[in-house]
Amino acid sequence: MGNTFGKILRLTTFGESHGVALGGILDGCPAGIAIAEEDIQTELDMRKPGTSRASTTRKEPDRIRLLSGVFEGMTTGTPLAFIIMNEDSRSRDYGPLRDLFRPGHADWGYFCKYNGIRDYRGGGRSSGRETVSRVAAGAIAKKILAHCCDARILAACIELGGIAVPEEAIDLGGALERPYFAASDAIVPKWDEAVARARSAADTLGGIVRIVAQNVPPGLGEPVFDKLDATIAHGLMSVGAVKGIEFGSGFAGAATGGSVNNDPIFPGSHGFRSAGGIPAPDFGSNNAGGILGGISSGQEIVIRVAVKPIASIPREQHTIDKNGHPASVLVGGRHDLSAIPRIVPVLTAMTALAIADALLLQKRMDICQ
Amino acid sequence: MGNTFGKILRLTTFGESHGVALGGILDGCPAGIAIAEEDIQTELDMRKPGTSRASTTRKEPDRIRLLSGVFEGMTTGTPLAFIIMNEDSRSRDYGPLRDLFRPGHADWGYFCKYNGIRDYRGGGRSSGRETVSRVAAGAIAKKILAHCCDARILAACIELGGIAVPEEAIDLGGALERPYFAASDAIVPKWDEAVARARSAADTLGGIVRIVAQNVPPGLGEPVFDKLDATIAHGLMSVGAVKGIEFGSGFAGAATGGSVNNDPIFPGSHGFRSAGGIPAPDFGSNNAGGILGGISSGQEIVIRVAVKPIASIPREQHTIDKNGHPASVLVGGRHDLSAIPRIVPVLTAMTALAIADALLLQKRMDICQ
Amino acid sequence: MGNTFGKILRLTTFGESHGVALGGILDGCPAGIAIAEEDIQTELDMRKPGTSRASTTRKEPDRIRLLSGVFEGMTTGTPLAFIIMNEDSRSRDYGPLRDLFRPGHADWGYFCKYNGIRDYRGGGRSSGRETVSRVAAGAIAKKILAHCCDARILAACIELGGIAVPEEAIDLGGALERPYFAASDAIVPKWDEAVARARSAADTLGGIVRIVAQNVPPGLGEPVFDKLDATIAHGLMSVGAVKGIEFGSGFAGAATGGSVNNDPIFPGSHGFRSAGGIPAPDFGSNNAGGILGGISSGQEIVIRVAVKPIASIPREQHTIDKNGHPASVLVGGRHDLSAIPRIVPVLTAMTALAIADALLLQKRMDICQ
Amino acid sequence: MGNTFGKILRLTTFGESHGVALGGILDGCPAGIAIAEEDIQTELDMRKPGTSRASTTRKEPDRIRLLSGVFEGMTTGTPLAFIIMNEDSRSRDYGPLRDLFRPGHADWGYFCKYNGIRDYRGGGRSSGRETVSRVAAGAIAKKILAHCCDARILAACIELGGIAVPEEAIDLGGALERPYFAASDAIVPKWDEAVARARSAADTLGGIVRIVAQNVPPGLGEPVFDKLDATIAHGLMSVGAVKGIEFGSGFAGAATGGSVNNDPIFPGSHGFRSAGGIPAPDFGSNNAGGILGGISSGQEIVIRVAVKPIASIPREQHTIDKNGHPASVLVGGRHDLSAIPRIVPVLTAMTALAIADALLLQKRMDICQ
Repeated sequence: MGNTFGKILRLTTFGESHGVALGGILDGCPAGIAIAEEDIQTELDMRKPGTSRASTTRKEPDRIRLLSGVFEGMTTGTPLAFIIMNEDSRSRDYGPLRDLFRPGHADWGYFCKYNGIRDYRGGGRSSGRETVSRVAAGAIAKKILAHCCDARILAACIELGGIAVPEEAIDLGGALERPYFAASDAIVPKWDEAVARARSAADTLGGIVRIVAQNVPPGLGEPVFDKLDATIAHGLMSVGAVKGIEFGSGFAGAATGGSVNNDPIFPGSHGFRSAGGIPAPDFGSNNAGGILGGISSGQEIVIRVAVKPIASIPREQHTIDKNGHPASVLVGGRHDLSAIPRIVPVLTAMTALAIADALLLQKRMDICQ
Repeated sequence: MGNTFGKILRLTTFGESHGVALGGILDGCPAGIAIAEEDIQTELDMRKPGTSRASTTRKEPDRIRLLSGVFEGMTTGTPLAFIIMNEDSRSRDYGPLRDLFRPGHADWGYFCKYNGIRDYRGGGRSSGRETVSRVAAGAIAKKILAHCCDARILAACIELGGIAVPEEAIDLGGALERPYFAASDAIVPKWDEAVARARSAADTLGGIVRIVAQNVPPGLGEPVFDKLDATIAHGLMSVGAVKGIEFGSGFAGAATGGSVNNDPIFPGSHGFRSAGGIPAPDFGSNNAGGILGGISSGQEIVIRVAVKPIASIPREQHTIDKNGHPASVLVGGRHDLSAIPRIVPVLTAMTALAIADALLLQKRMDICQ
Repeated sequence: MGNTFGKILRLTTFGESHGVALGGILDGCPAGIAIAEEDIQTELDMRKPGTSRASTTRKEPDRIRLLSGVFEGMTTGTPLAFIIMNEDSRSRDYGPLRDLFRPGHADWGYFCKYNGIRDYRGGGRSSGRETVSRVAAGAIAKKILAHCCDARILAACIELGGIAVPEEAIDLGGALERPYFAASDAIVPKWDEAVARARSAADTLGGIVRIVAQNVPPGLGEPVFDKLDATIAHGLMSVGAVKGIEFGSGFAGAATGGSVNNDPIFPGSHGFRSAGGIPAPDFGSNNAGGILGGISSGQEIVIRVAVKPIASIPREQHTIDKNGHPASVLVGGRHDLSAIPRIVPVLTAMTALAIADALLLQKRMDICQ
Repeated sequence: MGNTFGKILRLTTFGESHGVALGGILDGCPAGIAIAEEDIQTELDMRKPGTSRASTTRKEPDRIRLLSGVFEGMTTGTPLAFIIMNEDSRSRDYGPLRDLFRPGHADWGYFCKYNGIRDYRGGGRSSGRETVSRVAAGAIAKKILAHCCDARILAACIELGGIAVPEEAIDLGGALERPYFAASDAIVPKWDEAVARARSAADTLGGIVRIVAQNVPPGLGEPVFDKLDATIAHGLMSVGAVKGIEFGSGFAGAATGGSVNNDPIFPGSHGFRSAGGIPAPDFGSNNAGGILGGISSGQEIVIRVAVKPIASIPREQHTIDKNGHPASVLVGGRHDLSAIPRIVPVLTAMTALAIADALLLQKRMDICQ
């Protein structure tokens, strides 16, 4: 259970770190969206190691293969299945971990959950490798968003190892071209230093990612439990290393008053016309982060995501073995020094999936037009 | 859509702020749990105005009535339906809001979502009044948790109007006895002052709530998309005023290294025996907030929730009307000055529902024992 | 679990035969459909005793009350909750059944399912009384169908006690005006006789209902598991007394060849224009019953439903008690002699719910137009 | 949408008749069930052509490959993904069908549903080839049933081309060894003749399959909408050629009275002990087909399924083209003459999936033991 995301745009994924393959099925994509394997590959390549000094040297070619749901270059409305074969997985690295629980990992929880049965190789299903399927499906969701409302998801790293990009310097637009998918050029050398320091200290780093969804039409999200921020939070928090999420002014906004935090509404100057034929309003600020009462307002959706430091540190750590005896564990294998920046396309994928699902769900309202 | 929460313990709710009634159906509760209306009423009373100076003077007796699913004092396994009749609702207060969109509220989003049709009285479905149904169902979920594993959910307000309870002074245990469900006695006069200041400034306040779930057995939560933190985050973020969520070290932890943030594992000294018959381990810290890789570890689940200031401020605010013309709105009616503390039982309800659902879902694993 | 029906038009119901009330929540109804309590009451009245000699003398006024989701006479897009208070329930009739399992009833299954805990009064949740909630929600689904595509569901009884209306005499249109909702006038006296015979023999009767859905647009239903016939069958088979379902030529068609059973396709002469702008075709026959490969073809959807004889016969029957000892049971209370005709509005309700759900789900496809 | 079956044992499938591959993901299987590819292959081989004279000459090696969820021969509790590569698909056979709608097929419905976009090759997603994924997943469900309660699903063809096996001659046990998976040896030469006749008449045949589930514990199925018969009916009716379903006495029982149709209950003589520790009762008959009020009674679950004649007949048939013009279509390619017997493992797979899902869902009740 728990391997499906979405209500009517539904992603179901499978695969272990060192199994035969990973992949998924995306059900509910409308017919008539142009999709090519290369569109998906482009997103997967952003998740590959090598975009920064913080990444593993493990080679993950991660070639996507589309198995169904596309005919003559267009989605047919039937499920899109995709597969990524596992290669270059050194299972032997993980042998010593068979009977130990790595601190900061899901090992102990899986052991309890599955009656002691688990694929310990590279974390099995709990490995970050499962996110490759999220990215693949997210690429399709992004196509749907672009096709239907020209919406797009931007993201950048705004903090690494406690070193933040100053708010005024943040530039999301160019982030994909920069190392670390950084929100500014100036921060890159500082982060390089931090990474070097952490590496020599046998440590790892966490960070913060900002996500912005643009051109999301107003009216998306469902009342009460499936508010748009609730489903996006569900999606983002389901990514392994994520430990915190804020929308708009978030925790900082909680320290202000309504007079400051409310976003005043003014007549709209944009072209977008909504219900009743009036232009979408201009807002005097965006403390809501584009979502009010769980429904998109037409403003940019702005999210901050806290990413914990990678748990696999190259040091001996205290743990126990499966008989409950004290033990020491040194996690071998090749690991990223930070989930930043490779987590970025994963986070935008989840955001795109949640918004595209809300968009399709909203269509049922047209029945009365 | 969107009015159901949970996989196999499923809550579906209904009701508008000024409609006939609010209520819900909780499906999936096992047979044999002792439940009385009074158990639920006790939780509802915690959500009532009057527990602090920050609450509305609107009288909400909110008497619960159980309609089904309980026979001779025990759950029968069939759906528990409950209803709370609306009383003392002054709909006339809301007439002027018919054609205006209140800043900081869902009005504009609902207008777009539902083709211009909406119950504008008191926010209709988007009103915080819907949370009464969450609290009622949460009371039942808490009974399930207590019955099955002696788990319980504590919570307290740790910040109001930017004034935080110092970490070392936080005492969750006694919070329900204190004004504001405050985490310390000493903070209360300071918050009283802040409330008085805000009231005289025609402003409102936000705050932060800490939630702790105790005695949650290890192994709950599902891999990948329905991680326990993801479903809890979904539930919490679906509460109207919530704009941020952290588990464990959260955003602060993102600035540390794995050597600091990992929780070392030691042989267990508690009685609890898990898979393989070994005692649940002791952890050297709880930066994970009790959830690792989305699966409960057996530690306390620790969550911080950012609550935005109430949007209904007693001031003229800029807005537009439904024809797109500029307008000014003064939100009448009687409103809380802060969602703190009344949001507390709502947040613990959502936490309990998410965890109880995971607990029931986990039972299927026993099939192989 | 199991008390919810539908994917995006979702009905969740509650209530026991002798509990406080029955009712439900219908989530996912679009905004802007005109609905009044009286529309629903009209359908409920069709389910009342008194439309034939085969019905109980128990008075069931079954007054519907709408609790939410409708404002100024229109649906708002939020959940429609409705409640029917239980009255005139003679619980004392059921005391002797506390420890016995009635043959032909769910008593034994519930006993096993819920660890021996059950509301034995009138069958509790397993009573046919739960269908009142289906009928209420079905009334709303019928409104959606009428509003969106002028579709409507007809039905009539075509067999009672083994006495069938000859195929050529079947007239569904006038059925609601006839006793037994019979498919012909001529059959009524014969069925009166059969009923009298059964009554004097202390027996009960089963029968067959034909359902026809008209004006269902082509293209509804989802591939593979949620074919339109599969979801309709799910809905119909979930009605207590139903033991068989056929679409189109059904079991008889299974004895023919494709040359006979295939429905030849001819250019359309109707006004309806479908994908590509061509008129919906005329078919040379309707052995498919309006559904091909699980997708509606635009023809009438034709269904036959087998309804078993009422299990509550006024005779001593062999059974056991809850200690496993042999016993004899005489089911008291007032019961229908046949589920015919009161089951008819229940069956059309389920059909309408399934089709309306498919209709709303199909709207997402418009995203590419 | 619609490509997922089950509540907590969830099968999601993908694949087109002439696409790259077919397959699926089965989520929710408990950890600790021994599964090998060969177990699944054995079931797939039963679906292969060649078990009777009624099958296509198309070679479908249909080699299963398990991609995840099994480690060291045991399920791990994570999703089991499997893939069957398509081979020997002569797409060129289908070129002429690009613009035509085959009578008796889903072509017209898909055309309407997906805005004119469809993979016309071999029926694309609507092809019977999709059932290979059902059979693969069903093999796993059968393993779960065998592991947990020694339950098993038998089935046999009891009618082909209108020629029925006499009731008293029906022997399900030996069916898998016989041509046509026939319910008796004596019927085989008669069916051979019928097949020869149909072939020379350029026609196809329908038939009836009986399914029996043994050792299903009492108490499975959920009240109201997800009754066990309702979910089984959903699953069976979702198989392409199925047009009718009966449980127990079905349509025939509808012509009897309760005095005949009720199954009297006697003290149990079997070993099976149920709630309260009493032996499961003996029933005097099984007109209910093992399900009462939607809940399994512990008796054999007995189902009859009507299978329509194959729609692809080797004759010119009337149709229209996608411009609405009259046309004639001769369906080329190699086709079965009857869905019998290859449909048999598909039907047992769906039955097993529905029952195994109910079994896992029921486990949550143990929480109070």
